[in-house]
Amino acid sequence: MHAIEKYLAKAANKERVSTGEIVTAKVDLVEVNDLYLQVIKSFKEMGGDKVWNPDKVSFVFDHYSPTPTIKAADNHKKMREFCREQDIDHLFDINAGVCHQVLPEAGLVHPGMILVATDSHTTTHGAFGAFGTGVGATDLATILLSGELWFKVPEIIKIKIDGELKPNVMAKDVILHILGELKQDAAVYKAIEFTGSVVEEMSVAERMVLCNMSVEMGAKTTYIKPDQKTLDYLEPRVNREFEIVETDEDFEYVEVHHFDVSDLDPSVAKPHSIDNVDKVSNVVGEKVDQVFIGTCTGGRVNDIRVAAEILEGKKIADDIRLVVIPASDEVYKTAMEKGYIQTLVDSGATISAPGCGPCLGAHQGVLADGETCVATSSRNFPGRMGSTGAKVYSASPATAALTALKGSLADPGELKGRGE
Amino acid sequence: MHAIEKYLAKAANKERVSTGEIVTAKVDLVEVNDLYLQVIKSFKEMGGDKVWNPDKVSFVFDHYSPTPTIKAADNHKKMREFCREQDIDHLFDINAGVCHQVLPEAGLVHPGMILVATDSHTTTHGAFGAFGTGVGATDLATILLSGELWFKVPEIIKIKIDGELKPNVMAKDVILHILGELKQDAAVYKAIEFTGSVVEEMSVAERMVLCNMSVEMGAKTTYIKPDQKTLDYLEPRVNREFEIVETDEDFEYVEVHHFDVSDLDPSVAKPHSIDNVDKVSNVVGEKVDQVFIGTCTGGRVNDIRVAAEILEGKKIADDIRLVVIPASDEVYKTAMEKGYIQTLVDSGATISAPGCGPCLGAHQGVLADGETCVATSSRNFPGRMGSTGAKVYSASPATAALTALKGSLADPGELKGRGE
Repeated sequence: MHAIEKYLAKAANKERVSTGEIVTAKVDLVEVNDLYLQVIKSFKEMGGDKVWNPDKVSFVFDHYSPTPTIKAADNHKKMREFCREQDIDHLFDINAGVCHQVLPEAGLVHPGMILVATDSHTTTHGAFGAFGTGVGATDLATILLSGELWFKVPEIIKIKIDGELKPNVMAKDVILHILGELKQDAAVYKAIEFTGSVVEEMSVAERMVLCNMSVEMGAKTTYIKPDQKTLDYLEPRVNREFEIVETDEDFEYVEVHHFDVSDLDPSVAKPHSIDNVDKVSNVVGEKVDQVFIGTCTGGRVNDIRVAAEILEGKKIADDIRLVVIPASDEVYKTAMEKGYIQTLVDSGATISAPGCGPCLGAHQGVLADGETCVATSSRNFPGRMGSTGAKVYSASPATAALTALKGSLADPGELKGRGE
Repeated sequence: MHAIEKYLAKAANKERVSTGEIVTAKVDLVEVNDLYLQVIKSFKEMGGDKVWNPDKVSFVFDHYSPTPTIKAADNHKKMREFCREQDIDHLFDINAGVCHQVLPEAGLVHPGMILVATDSHTTTHGAFGAFGTGVGATDLATILLSGELWFKVPEIIKIKIDGELKPNVMAKDVILHILGELKQDAAVYKAIEFTGSVVEEMSVAERMVLCNMSVEMGAKTTYIKPDQKTLDYLEPRVNREFEIVETDEDFEYVEVHHFDVSDLDPSVAKPHSIDNVDKVSNVVGEKVDQVFIGTCTGGRVNDIRVAAEILEGKKIADDIRLVVIPASDEVYKTAMEKGYIQTLVDSGATISAPGCGPCLGAHQGVLADGETCVATSSRNFPGRMGSTGAKVYSASPATAALTALKGSLADPGELKGRGE
C-alpha cells in the first residue's frame, strides 16, 4: 500500500484498502472558512445539536478579513456565536491569515492525519504528509455530525522532479510548468505524490506550493514523504503523537511523470486558464496595472523575502501598483523582523492585512475592466480577481516583484542574482 | 481683520473683506478623493477640457484602497486616466493613505492657502493656518474649470482651551468634550479658531484632531495660529513661499468660548450622535465587539504609539477584535520603525493598508447588525460603519486600546501611567 492508503485504512479502521474502494474514515480535523456559513445552516438542517468533537473543528476567517461588507460581518458574527455555543476553541479570527498557512503554524497539521476543509486548496497539507482535501458545505456538515466522511481510495500519480533550479526559478514556476505539461484534468480524483531531488531540496514552504496547486490539476489530495525538514517544522508546533509510515516498495502508481527542471525558465500561466503556461520571456513587456503578492500559494516569508530582495532600494514603476498581503500574522511579523515589509513599503507597495485578499476578487485589490494583473495566487479564470474583463497572469513572487519594478511583465531569469 | 479674512481677501484680490460678504477667491489646491468620480463627470458636462492648473490639483485614493469592489477599481482607473490626460502629478494611489494626512506630509499644505477638497474633514488643515474646506462634486468641478470658488466670509468663533490635561486625556477627548458642550450645530458656516495654552502645548498632529472634528459642529473652516511647531513641521516639507499674517487686535469674534480642561476625564461620543458626549467612566463595562484605531482623526503616529504603549506585552481580550489602520504610509513606516506595529500585532491586532478603512463602512472592518465598536474616527450615526443596527462609540486611541485589552469599554483615566 501507499502511505496515503495506510493512513486512510487506519482512519477507516481497516487492515488495508485498495484503489477505488469506498471507505468511511474518521476525520482528524475540519476547517470551515468564512465563505461557508452554509456549513452551520446545513448542520442545523440535518438536526445537528453538538458537533462530534469541538477539538477537531476549526474556523478560519480569511476570505473576508477584515470584513468588507455587512454580509461578511454577519457571517463572522454567526460563526463566532456557533464556536462559542459549541465550545470550539480553534477559531482564527480576522487577525490570523489564510487557513492553509494558519493551521500548520498553529500545530494542527501533521503526517497521517485526515484534514477536510471547505477550501479546494486543502491539498496544500500533503506537504506535511497529511491527507488534506476540500469539500462543500453539506459534506463538511456531515462530518460535524459524525466525525466521518466517505472517500474513494484515490489512484496515485507520482511526479518526480529532478535537476537543479536556475536562480530566480521558484516552486511556483515548477508547478506551473507541470500544470502546463499535464493540463488541468490530469489528476481528477487522484492523489499526487511529489518526489525527487528538487522536492528534497525545497523548504517546507516551497513544497506547500506544489501541493497547493495540485488541485488545479483536479487532485483529491497530495503527498510528500515527511523528512527531517518536515519534522523540524512540526517539532516546535505539534503537540500530538503522529506516525510516519512508508509506502510499500511494490506499490504501483497509476502514472509516473518525470520532470528534469534544470533548464526550466520562469513560467507564467497566461489568461484565462491556469494551464495556459508559457515562459515569462515570451510575454515580457506586456503592460501590467497591478501586481499582487500573497495567498496560500505565494504569500509566505520566502515569497516576501524574494520580492523584497528584488525591490530593495528601488521604487516600483509609476503606473503600477503593488499589493502585498502576508499569508498569516506570523508571516507578517517575521517579514517585519527581517525588514522585508519596510523595504516593500519604501518601494511603494501597499501592505494589507493577512488573508486571501484579492485572490478571489473579494476585496483589497479587486480589478477593473480592462486591467491586467500579475499575481502569485493560483487561479486566473475570467472574473477571478474582479471584472471578467480583467486579465490575470499567475507567476512566481520573483516575476511579480520584477514586474512591479518594470511596470510591465518582466523575466527574473534575466537577473544575475536577486535585485540586479 | 482676522488672519482668515486677510487670506481670503488676498485670494479674492481685495484690500479687505468683511463678515458675510461673498467673495470669489483663487484656490491654491484642490483634492479629489476616490468617492468622487462625479467631479470628473461634472467637469466634462460643464464643457471642461483642461483643468486650470494641474499643479494645483490632487487626487487621493483613500476611501477604497486597496479596491474592495469592481466599481471602486473602475473609479480608480478612470481617475488615473484623467490625471494622465490632464498632466496631474499629485496622484496619491492606493499605497498613500488618508488625504488629510497625505497632503500635509507631501508638503502641499501651508499657512494662508485656500484648500478645497471633496471631503468634509478638510477643516483639518486649519491646524497649519490653511483655509481648508470641503465641497461637493459640482463646486469642485467649477474650481477645476476656473481655479476659483465663491465663499461667504464666515463669522469666526474663538475657542480658548486652557489648563493642563490629565494623563491619558488626549486631543480627541478635548474636542469631544467641546462638541458635547456646544453641540452639532454650534458653528454652521462659521470658522473656529482654537487658541489657549492647551492648544499651544499640543503637537501639530493633536491640533489636527481639533480642526478635523470642528466640521462635526458644522464649521466651514478652522484656524490655529502657526507657531514654531507648525514651522518645524512644514520646513522640511514645503518648498513654496508662504506668509503668516496676524489677526488684528481689534477683531471681534462672533462668539468666544473658554474651556478649562484640567479636570477633563476621557470622553466618548455615545451612539448615535457625535455630540452625545459622556465621560468614559459612565459607560465602562459596555460589551464591545470591535475596536478601530485609525482615520484622519485618530490614525497618526501619536495615536498608534499610545495604543502600543497600552497593549505592550499584552493580548487583546478573547472576544474582541482590534483593527489598526495607519493614516498614511509614512505613519505606517514610522510606527514600524518605532516597533509599535509589531507590538500591536503581537497583542492580536489586525493591521490593514493605510486609508480610511471602515470609518465610513466601506471595507476593512464593516460592522454587523447588533455589534458595538469603539472607534477613533469622527462619526457614529446609524450605519456609518456598516449595519444600521450597529453601535459606534467615538473615543480616543487610549480609550480604544484599553477597551481592546479589556473586551469592554474601559477608562484610560484609571491608568496611573500608560500600560499599567
